[in-house]
Amino acid sequence: MKLVLVRHGQSEWNLENKFTGWTDVDLTPKGVEEAIAGGKKILEEGILFDVAYTSFQKRAIKTLNYVLEACNQIYLPVNKTWRLNERHYGALQGLNKAETAKKYGDEQVHIWRRSFDIAPPFLEDGDERLPENDRRYASLDKKDLPRGESLKMTIERVLPYWDEYISKDIKAGKNVIIAAHGNSLRALVKYLLNISDEDILDLNISTGKPLVFEIDKDLNIIESPKSW
Amino acid sequence: MKLVLVRHGQSEWNLENKFTGWTDVDLTPKGVEEAIAGGKKILEEGILFDVAYTSFQKRAIKTLNYVLEACNQIYLPVNKTWRLNERHYGALQGLNKAETAKKYGDEQVHIWRRSFDIAPPFLEDGDERLPENDRRYASLDKKDLPRGESLKMTIERVLPYWDEYISKDIKAGKNVIIAAHGNSLRALVKYLLNISDEDILDLNISTGKPLVFEIDKDLNIIESPKSW
Repeated sequence: MKLVLVRHGQSEWNLENKFTGWTDVDLTPKGVEEAIAGGKKILEEGILFDVAYTSFQKRAIKTLNYVLEACNQIYLPVNKTWRLNERHYGALQGLNKAETAKKYGDEQVHIWRRSFDIAPPFLEDGDERLPENDRRYASLDKKDLPRGESLKMTIERVLPYWDEYISKDIKAGKNVIIAAHGNSLRALVKYLLNISDEDILDLNISTGKPLVFEIDKDLNIIESPKSW
Repeated sequence: MKLVLVRHGQSEWNLENKFTGWTDVDLTPKGVEEAIAGGKKILEEGILFDVAYTSFQKRAIKTLNYVLEACNQIYLPVNKTWRLNERHYGALQGLNKAETAKKYGDEQVHIWRRSFDIAPPFLEDGDERLPENDRRYASLDKKDLPRGESLKMTIERVLPYWDEYISKDIKAGKNVIIAAHGNSLRALVKYLLNISDEDILDLNISTGKPLVFEIDKDLNIIESPKSW
């Protein structure tokens, strides 16, 4: 079976160099182009999917829509889940990365960005950015919803969804495409390729470029993942 | 609860005046604009949905995507089904309406287009336009797949889906949006408003304009449907 991961293209806040996390920003025109190019590549390679997954966030959902349209598979079933959302960046969300470095110091920002298990400052009670204030998360159990996450915490909420849903599709012989975010995709790649906590920090998934895994029904990766 | 129906905007073959049916043509730029305008209207009215439905056809799926994006609800779960597809136009699919009139006579074409229970000529064995040749329908029971449909036949395959899925969401208190086609939406409106076999032929649903029903948990329509 084929499992294809696509990281969303450039977003408005990538461009403004802000911590985005769960902020629901849109793709830039360049981000749209990246998604369409990724979809065309899938069309050229002749990959046919049975099911698609994405997050609750616009930049990933739109990336998926553009990819599926470009490869003529817009009719596929699409499952959306908060568990594929980007890492929640807590109280840093909305702050410019340079300003944050001035306020907290370069070293502290480096730690937040590049450590495996250190979370950013959490959102506090009453913060309007709390996920529970957004109707798309309102029906979920508050205890599950993050107020800030380390990469480790992100992985811990992505993998149960993999176990419960995505892996079952693969075991059933389906080809799967997932359009998501830098850190939720890192979670999957770390798991699939058994990458260490340290090494995963250095793994950067390119935006808009489909990353293709050949995988068997026991979820073994048959050869190194391929991209273009 | 609110139930909102949206007919897809102008398609390429509307413009070319061809019988479309299950042919998977795209929206025109005008069709895209119509969809976006419909979504903005929903935004202005402040309607919030819990779930969305559409067909397996690109022009309806894209209409839904544009509508949901324009009303900031792209994160909603979307269910796609062949049962909301357009009426299957059998062997007429792909023919220009004027040419068809020359070949079969105006009266015969009028009968095919405007009668309740007369189907167009069916697709024959070996026709590449048969739904079973399209992978999106390949997993379905061949006996269910049409080779041509009257409006009556269209209604008969739309309503089981309403009963099995959409009506249950409404009974559960959910607001529902459906983006589909002239005839699959006629099927729903006929059922909801108890319109006669004759009168339904004169009912034309505008493209891109949301048609809003207020409906209770027993599926009674509370007041006349509203559009703008």
